[in-house]
Amino acid sequence: MTGWKVWAMAFGAALAAMLPAVSADMDRAQPQRMQARIDALSQFGRNADGGVDRVAYSQADIDSRAWLMDEMRALGLDVRIDAGGNIIGARAGREPGLKPIVFGSHTDSVPGGGNYDGDVGVIAALEVIELLNDAGHKTRHPLEVINFSNEEGGLVGSLAYTGRLKAEAMSVETHAGMSIAEGIRAIGGNPDDVNADSVSPGDIAAFLELHIEQGAVLYRDGTHIGVVEGIVGIGWWDVTVEGFANHAGTTPMAGRRDAMVAASRLTLAINRIALEEPGRQVATVGRIKAFPGAPNVIPGRVEMSLEIRDLEQNKIDRMFSLIRQAAAGIASETGTDIGFQPVDVASHPAPTDPRMRRIIAEAAASLGYSARVMPSGAGHDAQDMVTIAPTGMIFVPSKDGISHSPQEYTAPEDMARGADVLLRSILEIDAGALTRD
Amino acid sequence: MTGWKVWAMAFGAALAAMLPAVSADMDRAQPQRMQARIDALSQFGRNADGGVDRVAYSQADIDSRAWLMDEMRALGLDVRIDAGGNIIGARAGREPGLKPIVFGSHTDSVPGGGNYDGDVGVIAALEVIELLNDAGHKTRHPLEVINFSNEEGGLVGSLAYTGRLKAEAMSVETHAGMSIAEGIRAIGGNPDDVNADSVSPGDIAAFLELHIEQGAVLYRDGTHIGVVEGIVGIGWWDVTVEGFANHAGTTPMAGRRDAMVAASRLTLAINRIALEEPGRQVATVGRIKAFPGAPNVIPGRVEMSLEIRDLEQNKIDRMFSLIRQAAAGIASETGTDIGFQPVDVASHPAPTDPRMRRIIAEAAASLGYSARVMPSGAGHDAQDMVTIAPTGMIFVPSKDGISHSPQEYTAPEDMARGADVLLRSILEIDAGALTRD
Repeated sequence: MTGWKVWAMAFGAALAAMLPAVSADMDRAQPQRMQARIDALSQFGRNADGGVDRVAYSQADIDSRAWLMDEMRALGLDVRIDAGGNIIGARAGREPGLKPIVFGSHTDSVPGGGNYDGDVGVIAALEVIELLNDAGHKTRHPLEVINFSNEEGGLVGSLAYTGRLKAEAMSVETHAGMSIAEGIRAIGGNPDDVNADSVSPGDIAAFLELHIEQGAVLYRDGTHIGVVEGIVGIGWWDVTVEGFANHAGTTPMAGRRDAMVAASRLTLAINRIALEEPGRQVATVGRIKAFPGAPNVIPGRVEMSLEIRDLEQNKIDRMFSLIRQAAAGIASETGTDIGFQPVDVASHPAPTDPRMRRIIAEAAASLGYSARVMPSGAGHDAQDMVTIAPTGMIFVPSKDGISHSPQEYTAPEDMARGADVLLRSILEIDAGALTRD
Repeated sequence: MTGWKVWAMAFGAALAAMLPAVSADMDRAQPQRMQARIDALSQFGRNADGGVDRVAYSQADIDSRAWLMDEMRALGLDVRIDAGGNIIGARAGREPGLKPIVFGSHTDSVPGGGNYDGDVGVIAALEVIELLNDAGHKTRHPLEVINFSNEEGGLVGSLAYTGRLKAEAMSVETHAGMSIAEGIRAIGGNPDDVNADSVSPGDIAAFLELHIEQGAVLYRDGTHIGVVEGIVGIGWWDVTVEGFANHAGTTPMAGRRDAMVAASRLTLAINRIALEEPGRQVATVGRIKAFPGAPNVIPGRVEMSLEIRDLEQNKIDRMFSLIRQAAAGIASETGTDIGFQPVDVASHPAPTDPRMRRIIAEAAASLGYSARVMPSGAGHDAQDMVTIAPTGMIFVPSKDGISHSPQEYTAPEDMARGADVLLRSILEIDAGALTRD
């Protein structure tokens, strides 16, 4: 955790004095109201473990989207579905010509998912509208609450929204048992021209996403708010270690070219390289298979995965280079060949806008909430949004860091603090904070 | 290879002078004749790769057994099938009351097997009968050529022959798509009383098995004959490493309880422990699986196999104890739990009879063939036979140590040298060598 900047609560008071008065008039988010909406949303796709199976394009997804659009309409929003299947609820602003401030997240889940990943960001967006309605406050900018489609299946909605969803993606099979094209049609989008409603740089004033951390950093430290400095880039390689398969009984230890021994050395080298230098880089071997895979045969080949994440592409590159050097030494010492095949799901680091980080940090401080700057180790729709708008991301604590599981949990008070920071940040942007300095 | 005793060819002449005259009268085995029988046998179950799929009880196995019985009858043997499905070809002796000398191996294969594993021992046994017939030599003892049933599926025939095949085994499914009971019935055995024809200690004078080494020791050294000091015991454990599964992007390196990292450290500890002390012990991790097994999830559990082999049970026990100690340290340092579950396929070391080793070594020397004492790292029917008779085992070279593969190969001259040693050993036993000192 060394090197992570922490905003002390005490620091909040001083900053609060510098903020415009508008924020102070607003009520705070209501934890019970947010929890009630989380509970209502959790009925769609509910499974026996208390989580949800609400994969994109499934009936549960379709039903929950209908519920969400009703909630939006009840709050006075003007609801539309764009070509990518994203649900957008618009609230008019008072100054003509200003671009919308967009905020939201997603409500689809992984198979066997929980009730908070994505959901909290959408419910918080509704809570923001509730509070603005309660205060009778009309913003200068139009506001748009967005629920991105199929986030868990590859950020599909935000790719379409930013005009970058590729034609090849349309035929990819999804967990719902249909292609992405069929799914987008099923939820009311337009797969024949999926990027038709995309926005270009300058089309929106800003984008904000609130999300659960999906890690344990905030929860363990008791910190209220994470100010996301960016979504880490991901390098992913299929690693193949080629040795020589042989009878485990008749081949003396000294004559072996055991691919499993080489793979073990490489796994430890990867771990050491990721631990050795300061920073928040991570490297993981999550999948491994030995061939032929019998207890009485020395593995002749091992296939394993290597994933490296960091906020800086050049650190990912440097770590991979060190790993390759280590692999060359291990291969030579063990009589094996080690090869790395890049996998194209890799993504580049997506830093958030520094002004947005400052706005979020100041909002937290003004509310008396503790905050820390941190990377997002997981992928989010926000990483697509950085390409077309000043983007900021707010994290709230995840109990024990658990996510993609029915055990996922964020306390109502933590959700409410996140919604408060979201609202204050929107009001600051609306007041011109992005152009102030 | 340190510590392995090698009989130099030069030593052979001195020993040969001490041997009885009978051996000297006999012709040597004919490489071409043996190769022709190997080729004939290889037609049964022949596959596209040039090897055989001749798993026990398959039609190919049944057909090859009919061929073998015809060959035996053509050589004047009196052929029977015992309750365990073993084929036994008997040749009468000249002194009433003497127990038979039994020799042979097996002709069933693994799926995708080669043309030498087992086969060479059976063909060499036929060659011995050919040579005795050619010389018009009638032994004092009766002789029995044996072809054990279903060796590759768990030494089934030799277990039944020695009266130790368990009732539970009868329902085990085999590669031929039937149970062992059904298979034994299909080849003419009696699954209802499978141990009915078993022999007890004292019922046979001696057992000899010739087999390909299935390792590269003889081939690499250019040594003709392996005098097997015993079949190694096998300890087999299912190892489970329990860590904590977590998001590979959001979990800092320092907070991880990565089961894959712990499993890698354990794999290297196992390798080091097996390499560290002198001797021919081996230890292998041949199978590994990480759970959940996704590149973007830190493995929460790893399941792997551990196999240890040695000629001495107490060395197997001592190595396992060292491995458990290492595992305890690794578990404590990595925040994981490591458990070992013994698997009941483990077998105890089966040392051959020291008198039989000497007889084989002297036979090789008398023929001018180089020989070395060595363990068998693979399992063989001989390991069952040690429980009821003085047992010896003769190895011939395997090209590049390859076995259980269509690439399996032993040169005709190497097979013939093995048959020569087999015949000389039989004649020595027949002449009373087991009781001489």
